[in-house]
Amino acid sequence: MTTGEIPNEFQGYGVLKNGDWFKTQLISYPRKNINPKDVVIKNICCGICGSDLLTLKQQWGPMLREDGCVVGHEIIGHVIATGTEVTEFKVGDRVGVGAHCTSCGGCARCKSDNEQYCLQGVDTYNDVDGLHDDYITQGGYSSHFIANEKEVFAIPAELSSEEAAPLMCAGLTVFSPLVREVGYNATGKTMGIIGIGGLGHLAVQFGKAIGANVVAFSRSSSKKKQALEMGASTFVATGEEKDWTTNFKDGFDLILNCAIGIDGLNLDDYISVLKVGAKFVSVGLPDVKEKYSVSPFTFLQHGAAFGSSLLGSKKEANYMLKLAAEKGVRPWIEKVPVNAKSCSEALQRCDAGDVRYRFVLTDFDKAFSQ
Amino acid sequence: MTTGEIPNEFQGYGVLKNGDWFKTQLISYPRKNINPKDVVIKNICCGICGSDLLTLKQQWGPMLREDGCVVGHEIIGHVIATGTEVTEFKVGDRVGVGAHCTSCGGCARCKSDNEQYCLQGVDTYNDVDGLHDDYITQGGYSSHFIANEKEVFAIPAELSSEEAAPLMCAGLTVFSPLVREVGYNATGKTMGIIGIGGLGHLAVQFGKAIGANVVAFSRSSSKKKQALEMGASTFVATGEEKDWTTNFKDGFDLILNCAIGIDGLNLDDYISVLKVGAKFVSVGLPDVKEKYSVSPFTFLQHGAAFGSSLLGSKKEANYMLKLAAEKGVRPWIEKVPVNAKSCSEALQRCDAGDVRYRFVLTDFDKAFSQ
Repeated sequence: MTTGEIPNEFQGYGVLKNGDWFKTQLISYPRKNINPKDVVIKNICCGICGSDLLTLKQQWGPMLREDGCVVGHEIIGHVIATGTEVTEFKVGDRVGVGAHCTSCGGCARCKSDNEQYCLQGVDTYNDVDGLHDDYITQGGYSSHFIANEKEVFAIPAELSSEEAAPLMCAGLTVFSPLVREVGYNATGKTMGIIGIGGLGHLAVQFGKAIGANVVAFSRSSSKKKQALEMGASTFVATGEEKDWTTNFKDGFDLILNCAIGIDGLNLDDYISVLKVGAKFVSVGLPDVKEKYSVSPFTFLQHGAAFGSSLLGSKKEANYMLKLAAEKGVRPWIEKVPVNAKSCSEALQRCDAGDVRYRFVLTDFDKAFSQ
Repeated sequence: MTTGEIPNEFQGYGVLKNGDWFKTQLISYPRKNINPKDVVIKNICCGICGSDLLTLKQQWGPMLREDGCVVGHEIIGHVIATGTEVTEFKVGDRVGVGAHCTSCGGCARCKSDNEQYCLQGVDTYNDVDGLHDDYITQGGYSSHFIANEKEVFAIPAELSSEEAAPLMCAGLTVFSPLVREVGYNATGKTMGIIGIGGLGHLAVQFGKAIGANVVAFSRSSSKKKQALEMGASTFVATGEEKDWTTNFKDGFDLILNCAIGIDGLNLDDYISVLKVGAKFVSVGLPDVKEKYSVSPFTFLQHGAAFGSSLLGSKKEANYMLKLAAEKGVRPWIEKVPVNAKSCSEALQRCDAGDVRYRFVLTDFDKAFSQ
């Protein structure tokens, strides 16, 4: 192992299990063990993701730690140590980690660039690392992070740390279904992006970057100017243009749902404008209790399908980062210094949808004593 | 035009709009005009499909004709005349027609072997031929049928007419999603077939014929012996083996739902055993009011999707017929002479699920005077 200075306790802004979901406070917690393929990272910054809110509100299930839950899975930092079997990274490298921090490496999924779907995989926070020592993971609103090198991505020099952070989860989450459904070269393809928010504003840019014609869907026209600026060729305000489907018959090779909730989303409308065999893919995750109600008939006239997609593979992450560097894809971010007050405010603003389009917590070197 | 003897009125066993759905009676109706690409067929036999029942019961919408609705879309017959622009067929050829009788020929779908999804396409019965003269189509429990040559399939000599009939709709409906999802050579792939009935018993055989490992799902074990005989390697009685999913983790490249209704179908169970990116495809059509209730979370751990599929293309039909001829895929049929009494009885038995596995109406030469 190559070791730098690795404290035994890490620091982070966490929420107590029975406290208010947005009331973060500085806590310390024992770090996880460093396994042979692990990379130890001293964090520079971390994006705020909708998943953080859903976890802190316990809408995806209970918090697992009694001593405070630290969320954050859009982590950028510098490598300060590497396990004995790490081959890809060395101390000093600038790297990122998304929503997945380790996977088994040996299953069919791991071996086919689907490690994000590894059935033994471990989430970056509030999950049990059953592959190793049952450590309950803590996220990136923190001083340090430890991840398996398969889940660690090298950050190109062209991207600032703050701009790279939201690509770790939001960027990869939208990029993976784009390229899986229409390929890395989408020239001649048309894709629809529902919801111009943290996920959607990146989906529009990446859609354009791979060569697709991008149609942006939003309830109102308030984000029209910005969506066109991001690269959409057309903007549809579904709440204002009731008969929008008539203009898009047989129109879409993919519709990507980036809206967090599904309330009020007319699935039938969207399915009706898909091309034969095309998919409606949902990446915006709702509360676990929300359900779609769909008729097999809805899909029939198009041989279409409805599905979900989870994160992306390392192969896709590396391609995405290269593409972002080359084509100027950049998250639109608001920087917030990491401390109890501003974390709390940012989480509440995020919950109210008052962010265009992604918060990034910064100034980690000032916040943590380690 | 090459004309044989084409009566101006065709005969068929139809159901009156306000009568009981199973009470067929012999009716006459004016034939449709013969367009340049049309093939005129003197019928030999016709399969009974679940769609026939749903149409006659008006569960898919109202009957359009006042003078009696003739269903049937698994038609085999001989060509007795061809339109001026027909190039594929000549008088005397033995041919078949499925559930689609014409398409525009000019749209992107028609030009990409997706003519069954043509937005202007016309169903074989109880549909308005908006491409030509708004004729309301009448199906194949009848003396003759007229279809665009694109929707007419040549029948290989190895297949009897009665065995070929169920392939026109049931066969093609299951064959198309099989080959679209896993390819024409499915060696090394595993597919699940839910519902061993009219559709499912062909899906099992075709799955095996393209080289897949086939798992048959049924509520009870009553069809186990037959399913294994058809080519399934494994049979799962979902009503008796409650924890069946544990044996099939990450197990399926495709699950094809051939059950007509969706009541009691545990979609979550089936989705949970799909491989990454695999699909659950439904071809068994329920009442239009039935709905699936699904959570985006259900699909998430597999990047899986849910969809439907409609019929198949001519390209797929031709391949299917060649494969059936070569590999011995044969519908398991019960022959019923076409007349008012036996039509009525067969429809009622079909409705009660009392058929293993497909009825074919025969003896057309005795039933119709033309």
